[in-house]
Amino acid sequence: MGMATDSAIKDAAPKSPWPKNAWYVACTPDEIAEKPLGRTICGERMVFFRSGDGAPAALEDFCPHRGAPLSLGFQREGRLVCGYHGLVVDCRGKAAEMPGQKVGGFPASRHFATIERYGFIWVWPGDPETADPSKLHHLEWAESPEWAYGGGYYHIACDYRLMIDNLMDLTHETYVHAASIGQKEIDEAPVRTRADDHEVVTSRYMDGVKAPPFWQMALRGAGLPEDSTVDRWQVCRFSLPSHVMIEVGVALAGQGGYEAPDEAKASSIVVDFITPETETSHHYFWGMARRFAVDDHALTHTIREGQGKIFSEDLDMLERQQANLLRWPERRLLKLNIDAGGVRSRMMIERTIAAEIAAEGESPLVEEPISGV
Amino acid sequence: MGMATDSAIKDAAPKSPWPKNAWYVACTPDEIAEKPLGRTICGERMVFFRSGDGAPAALEDFCPHRGAPLSLGFQREGRLVCGYHGLVVDCRGKAAEMPGQKVGGFPASRHFATIERYGFIWVWPGDPETADPSKLHHLEWAESPEWAYGGGYYHIACDYRLMIDNLMDLTHETYVHAASIGQKEIDEAPVRTRADDHEVVTSRYMDGVKAPPFWQMALRGAGLPEDSTVDRWQVCRFSLPSHVMIEVGVALAGQGGYEAPDEAKASSIVVDFITPETETSHHYFWGMARRFAVDDHALTHTIREGQGKIFSEDLDMLERQQANLLRWPERRLLKLNIDAGGVRSRMMIERTIAAEIAAEGESPLVEEPISGV
Amino acid sequence: MGMATDSAIKDAAPKSPWPKNAWYVACTPDEIAEKPLGRTICGERMVFFRSGDGAPAALEDFCPHRGAPLSLGFQREGRLVCGYHGLVVDCRGKAAEMPGQKVGGFPASRHFATIERYGFIWVWPGDPETADPSKLHHLEWAESPEWAYGGGYYHIACDYRLMIDNLMDLTHETYVHAASIGQKEIDEAPVRTRADDHEVVTSRYMDGVKAPPFWQMALRGAGLPEDSTVDRWQVCRFSLPSHVMIEVGVALAGQGGYEAPDEAKASSIVVDFITPETETSHHYFWGMARRFAVDDHALTHTIREGQGKIFSEDLDMLERQQANLLRWPERRLLKLNIDAGGVRSRMMIERTIAAEIAAEGESPLVEEPISGV
Repeated sequence: MGMATDSAIKDAAPKSPWPKNAWYVACTPDEIAEKPLGRTICGERMVFFRSGDGAPAALEDFCPHRGAPLSLGFQREGRLVCGYHGLVVDCRGKAAEMPGQKVGGFPASRHFATIERYGFIWVWPGDPETADPSKLHHLEWAESPEWAYGGGYYHIACDYRLMIDNLMDLTHETYVHAASIGQKEIDEAPVRTRADDHEVVTSRYMDGVKAPPFWQMALRGAGLPEDSTVDRWQVCRFSLPSHVMIEVGVALAGQGGYEAPDEAKASSIVVDFITPETETSHHYFWGMARRFAVDDHALTHTIREGQGKIFSEDLDMLERQQANLLRWPERRLLKLNIDAGGVRSRMMIERTIAAEIAAEGESPLVEEPISGV
Repeated sequence: MGMATDSAIKDAAPKSPWPKNAWYVACTPDEIAEKPLGRTICGERMVFFRSGDGAPAALEDFCPHRGAPLSLGFQREGRLVCGYHGLVVDCRGKAAEMPGQKVGGFPASRHFATIERYGFIWVWPGDPETADPSKLHHLEWAESPEWAYGGGYYHIACDYRLMIDNLMDLTHETYVHAASIGQKEIDEAPVRTRADDHEVVTSRYMDGVKAPPFWQMALRGAGLPEDSTVDRWQVCRFSLPSHVMIEVGVALAGQGGYEAPDEAKASSIVVDFITPETETSHHYFWGMARRFAVDDHALTHTIREGQGKIFSEDLDMLERQQANLLRWPERRLLKLNIDAGGVRSRMMIERTIAAEIAAEGESPLVEEPISGV
Repeated sequence: MGMATDSAIKDAAPKSPWPKNAWYVACTPDEIAEKPLGRTICGERMVFFRSGDGAPAALEDFCPHRGAPLSLGFQREGRLVCGYHGLVVDCRGKAAEMPGQKVGGFPASRHFATIERYGFIWVWPGDPETADPSKLHHLEWAESPEWAYGGGYYHIACDYRLMIDNLMDLTHETYVHAASIGQKEIDEAPVRTRADDHEVVTSRYMDGVKAPPFWQMALRGAGLPEDSTVDRWQVCRFSLPSHVMIEVGVALAGQGGYEAPDEAKASSIVVDFITPETETSHHYFWGMARRFAVDDHALTHTIREGQGKIFSEDLDMLERQQANLLRWPERRLLKLNIDAGGVRSRMMIERTIAAEIAAEGESPLVEEPISGV
């Protein structure tokens, strides 16, 4: 009997290390402007393109005729034409036509729900019937003219949760980003973490410090003296499935810090959409939304360059951390107070995955976390 | 007892996805002019070189002394000298001499039967005792002065049968080769496939069409007006083990098409020798034999450049199709009328493999086709 | 019962193909001058750095906090600071401090014994408690002002024992190094191999020969006529765990050869420290120590360039030999008289490994040699 149970567990589908029924950033509109885009999201190989009404569409990247990737084809009148033998599929994956063929009996390609909003194409890797646009977070900074935004993309060869850990513990700035945003006072300031049903928040306040180089640039951009003593803050907010928005800023010392009036501070939101690709890789859409000098496009460019350079400093560390964790899979890592943000974010992810499995009528399995936590 | 049977099946040698007892193109003579050539053919790592009488020879690429690749050695007086410690082997793999050693008791290296003909070195990967030169196809175009030939080589990371599929269904020209040989009428013209014991033939005739760019060039080369309305044809002939010869051409409209007199047409044979390397890669020897302007070497060069460019367009599609099929191994692909040429060619290959196994006294196993068909 | 035995054998820890309790060259001092060095030695991922008193130190390259490689960190006051979140570890792997944290309960990182001597950092990959500095060989040429030394480093993708074979059978010089140190007489001269408890010695003497190009250069460097007829010798000495020192030289013919007075010969020691990385790769520290023109730094440079070029000729052969052996793991290779040096060196290694296992209270397993010998 024990055997049967073991066997049943072994036969169960492996649990994915990410929620499936959630909105993830898949790409930016420019990536599908000219031709289809092939990209793996949450382990699913997908092709993205524009449908007849201009809305984005996503299908499995596999032509039912001979298995060619549909992403090697082209968009025509809002449908996707396979680049090998010309099978045409519509935005729901239904075979629409093929030269010299009756396609009525062709199997449909699997499709995924998509939304275009806030300057991104979002995809729901799970069952499209359950895709709920109302579950997409509201992003004030992406819609309001009071904000300016600039950002970029990196492909990173590590578990997406290692990136969440990274962003929910900014202690690393002192070490990884010593020359730009790191400063000794980060280490020394206490960190507080709290969580509710919707988010995990880790915050740190550093009063009366000197601004590091990146923030000196921001002060200049905001028309403030760059060598002022400032109050600095970092408020990291994790929300499902894997977004981290970090409110960061500096205010002239004694003006209220985080609460200071706009004219006495330079503040922004570090935007991080972290989309799993495979169990050991992810797509990283990073950016910065700011509320000062919003019409200064040169500043937007300068900030993006600076942020891109800073974030690239994390790449090597994260990928080699991943390699180390794969090499020593049995090691238990430490969970310090500074790690609480990441730990509680992972717990929220785990609960969500368990709930998805329960909803599918399967009993949740205990997962061995990939990253060794 | 059931266990014993299962075990017996498991212990049986895995069935190769290619006939072993057949002639495959191994290389061109220039590839062994200066030094030995190491190349894997049908899963066997071989070294090719010239023996004492100038005839080609092929051995397993493994020195019995210390396992060094013999292909890193050199040819001397028609024998192969290992480049590590100087063991000399003859064209049958027999150890001939070694400085300071008596080699009488040395194990022989496995050898393979070879033939040089038609401008190629051919190899028989199976038992050399069964190698039968009379089984080599007669290639009229390679011997007659009425023909000119030019060709090249590509290494392609896909199952050789995906290339056979590709060549036995030229519908793909409209999509993959839109700028050179593709045209809408290919899709629209009906295709006919027939098979006998020796070959599979898929043919398509397009009357009264405009010649696409490649054929305009050929018309010019043949001294015919390039903007003429033409009758175009494609006759794809598969023969064992994996050759595809495609008769292609255009004739001035109404002059008889395929049957038109030589002075009213530009016709040629697309030559495709497809040699398996591993289960997911092959050597592709492509070329074109033509019966017009045979002394125009500049034209030979121009055609080879054009054909090389066209065939390179297939590489990415085929390699990514292979990757997709490996990712979704359980998918059944569609077999449409346009696929009949490939499907029937694969059936002929399967029957040949089964016959080889039967001849070896083993029971044929049902193979899971690599390509998912 | 047989089943139980089999099972027990399978469950036993895999035997390493190298002695663990021995001194291996890990790196040269310049490699840790600026920052820590990450390097895998005998299957252990290590980080090397300078401790507080300037002595070298080696730890497992894994931060106990979040698994980052410590080699991405930096040295500060003789301790290692993790480059991710700032955990500081000392030279024994003990957590020393971390901003805002009490580290008393942190697990220590594994450490390895190291010594700096003879211009190298040496590491003992086994239990540091057993590390015995007296087991480090005495290297006269590295300490005496009568000798000059120059050398370099290669990473080679083959079992370290294939390099030992290579160096203990210089017959390969005739083939691999035909243009520099190879000559026909090497093949023709008989080779003698003897072994005692401490070393395996293979020697070859060639009297009355012409010096090959490398030795002509050495004769010039030694102030001797480069076109003289010479007596040449090669005495290869293997010692545990994997060092090969080769006494090589040429003397004016008839002056006593190996025993000739210094002014009539150019002699040197080819130095080879062969440090296993993985089962199929190693670190190769090569060099040449000479007793002539020891103050001629330009000559040192010229010799190093020449030796580096010669040794690079072995790389391709060794790596492709390794690939062949992995492909044909069941093949038994030949053991000729010229192979006796390598064969006996491997036997000494095997005995040492067996003794280590016996000392650990485990029964020695019969190993399948990686290289097929």
